[in-house]
Amino acid sequence: MANDWATFGSDLHLELRGPRLRAGLMDALREAVRSGRLAAGTRLPSSRSLAADLGMARNTVADAYAELVAEGWLTARQGSGTRVAPRASPRTPAPAVPVPPPAATGRDRPAAPAHSLKSGSPDLAAFPRAAWLKAYRRALTNAPNEAFGYGDPLGRIELRRALGEYLARARGVHARPERIVICAGFVHGLELMGQVLRARGVRNVAVESYGLALHDGLLRRAGLRTPVLGFDERGTRTGELTEVRDCGAVLMTAAHQYPLGGALPPERRAAVVDWARASGGLVLEDDYDGEFRYDRQPVGALQGLDPEHVVYFGTASKSLAPGLRLGWMVLPQDLVEDVVAVKGAADWASSTPDQLAFAEFLRSGAYDRHVRAMRLRYRRRRDQLVAAVAAHSPGTAVSGIAAGLHAVLTLPPGTERATLRAAAWRGLTVQGVDQFRRPGVPVTLEGLVVGYATPPDSGWQGALRALCGILP
Amino acid sequence: MANDWATFGSDLHLELRGPRLRAGLMDALREAVRSGRLAAGTRLPSSRSLAADLGMARNTVADAYAELVAEGWLTARQGSGTRVAPRASPRTPAPAVPVPPPAATGRDRPAAPAHSLKSGSPDLAAFPRAAWLKAYRRALTNAPNEAFGYGDPLGRIELRRALGEYLARARGVHARPERIVICAGFVHGLELMGQVLRARGVRNVAVESYGLALHDGLLRRAGLRTPVLGFDERGTRTGELTEVRDCGAVLMTAAHQYPLGGALPPERRAAVVDWARASGGLVLEDDYDGEFRYDRQPVGALQGLDPEHVVYFGTASKSLAPGLRLGWMVLPQDLVEDVVAVKGAADWASSTPDQLAFAEFLRSGAYDRHVRAMRLRYRRRRDQLVAAVAAHSPGTAVSGIAAGLHAVLTLPPGTERATLRAAAWRGLTVQGVDQFRRPGVPVTLEGLVVGYATPPDSGWQGALRALCGILP
Repeated sequence: MANDWATFGSDLHLELRGPRLRAGLMDALREAVRSGRLAAGTRLPSSRSLAADLGMARNTVADAYAELVAEGWLTARQGSGTRVAPRASPRTPAPAVPVPPPAATGRDRPAAPAHSLKSGSPDLAAFPRAAWLKAYRRALTNAPNEAFGYGDPLGRIELRRALGEYLARARGVHARPERIVICAGFVHGLELMGQVLRARGVRNVAVESYGLALHDGLLRRAGLRTPVLGFDERGTRTGELTEVRDCGAVLMTAAHQYPLGGALPPERRAAVVDWARASGGLVLEDDYDGEFRYDRQPVGALQGLDPEHVVYFGTASKSLAPGLRLGWMVLPQDLVEDVVAVKGAADWASSTPDQLAFAEFLRSGAYDRHVRAMRLRYRRRRDQLVAAVAAHSPGTAVSGIAAGLHAVLTLPPGTERATLRAAAWRGLTVQGVDQFRRPGVPVTLEGLVVGYATPPDSGWQGALRALCGILP
Repeated sequence: MANDWATFGSDLHLELRGPRLRAGLMDALREAVRSGRLAAGTRLPSSRSLAADLGMARNTVADAYAELVAEGWLTARQGSGTRVAPRASPRTPAPAVPVPPPAATGRDRPAAPAHSLKSGSPDLAAFPRAAWLKAYRRALTNAPNEAFGYGDPLGRIELRRALGEYLARARGVHARPERIVICAGFVHGLELMGQVLRARGVRNVAVESYGLALHDGLLRRAGLRTPVLGFDERGTRTGELTEVRDCGAVLMTAAHQYPLGGALPPERRAAVVDWARASGGLVLEDDYDGEFRYDRQPVGALQGLDPEHVVYFGTASKSLAPGLRLGWMVLPQDLVEDVVAVKGAADWASSTPDQLAFAEFLRSGAYDRHVRAMRLRYRRRRDQLVAAVAAHSPGTAVSGIAAGLHAVLTLPPGTERATLRAAAWRGLTVQGVDQFRRPGVPVTLEGLVVGYATPPDSGWQGALRALCGILP
């Protein structure tokens, strides 16, 4: 096994590119495991010795190991060191979006960490199988024959009508069906929009200080630059938009900042819309979890303030399940043609039976019932999280709790990395805020992003105990 | 109404770009209808006067009108001229792939032509709703919870295993599950492959003389050039591959040339593989209708000859329904990582419940049963087509009939356009071979591409009669 490592290690420097050493190291390790160059069971060198070999800080290596343990690529046991996880070769690559590790029933997977509080997923065990199946059956039975043909790039009219009614009622969105485009989730929608913006001559799309690297990365791959707006305790400093040179659009999670959790205050919401009107810019509103509000009236979508300057993105990934690959955009009228042209040319349509099933699910009231049930479930978990943290770690602040599927636990300066390592060691998958920090943003915040919706009910209490065990 | 037209007509020249005037004119007209600039009922100028206005040949305008009538955008009635179809505004744009007009049950659609023999679609009325629903129910009931999460960019392992077995058995494809990537149809797969090839430094991808403009257009949008291989009565002249400078790949419909219908002869198949081995090039094999063979043993996939040099593309769009958006690629081992990287970064995954349902459909034997039933149905139609043409137009040769969902009727030189106009006038949608001719290929062939699978059983005899009525 030492040989395996030695052979691999000598090539490793070739794989490391770019400034983000930890991410590069993680990619190289994943790649080596996936390709079989590092076989299951192979013992990796200690973080100290690998760091010395590679000329990296030891923390960088230790962090990469810890994250890969959390993702299930590696195992770490006291006394046995860090090893490639059993049956991890060949393994499927890491998905591009936050994802919980496979449940215990999954086959062909390495042993999963015991608990996941990774954000970005609803409780998959709560997917309403019977209700969805009922909607699917009705939809399939009643579908006209043409529904089985090549789809309209806009999406099925039945679904666009049902969404239009729902979004107006639940999110205050002005959503006439002819402005709605069905897509395969937010990332798909953002990719389409990136192409459209680039083709319209947009150069810069401002982003928030914290968010998913996947999102700004996608915009950059479309040829756009992504200047970063500042951030303070009240949220994203949208007033800075007027200072960003040549800014054509801004990507926002206005109703519930991802991952930090706040709602944009009214005057900052107004500033975004004012900027868009004055400059002709576009607001890309990622309303990823707008359904989940607990303690107060929902914050309406920004889109309601100015439908001609806001592109509204919604998704069934949090409210139902990511596996359905169903999302939607509500577009300013003059963007519809451009989006359809890009989407149609690439044959990007979601399954029409699925679209009809979702339309039926919305129309029948099943979606409202499911969202209400999940809201109660997640609110209960949130309350238990707040109570448990108060009991076990009274000094830890819990924020971003008015809405959504996750909360942020603030950690004392200098402790985030160690806390994440402790979590990995205990088999708990959880993310630090630092991994959402966009390039160039100073570190002013340390903490954990706790996806309390992620575990199944049966795993929730265990995950919560594991979490409390690593808090100061 | 004259005003509507006049306002619109004065802008029209702005919309016409590129050498393909007819396509440009059609796009401009569709765009004008879609955007509402040309309202439903608006009478268009005669083809003669518009041709004079635009400095085009009258035939170009007449052809564009006829095709738009066939697509349902315009109506043409003797005595009433050519008008924008009722309820065509705003209308959904023409899909990017061949599609039959909406069935009579479709709402929100303009009046459809009475008959469609447009190629590229199976009989949508024959979609096996009950069997599919059964598979979907079983799949949804038995799915592990993680199936509802963000998917593996490769696709579900259950489906890749079922496909691997099926493809080996039915198409002679070497298809280990870890080399299979699920995608949303052929065009999606080709788009991914275009990005991968470009990133690997490929410059030129050779294409056949006849094919869908969508496909070579997609490769060019990925930054690739698409030199065209010659064609003779025996099929694509694959021997020319060695003469194409700097050619990194070739896109082929080897088992059943689309749309001309022949199978590539053995020595030309060998020439493709020899070229790929000698040059390190890749064969992109579009096996779009490999299931449908009538008079002889199936022609196995090229991929079986050399799995390390052939990318095999398959789809459920012809064998089941395009609306499912399910396709698959079988990749040479060293391409898997690249494809997954491109696909994963864009969050491109098909619905996991659908993937599991298709796996169940394959495993249970329902797919085999459906394909057998459809093969009988299409073969019967093909026989009736051959007999009807022989009876009504004995001079018309019918070719490409050993396989697939369409046949080619050869027309006398100089008559294809007039025949298409006659078809449109009679409410019959059918395509000419010329619209599949790739840029620069000389006109040596005139004829109709007859998609005999397209109509429902109830419409087949009527469509056949309408077809016979326009033959010489």
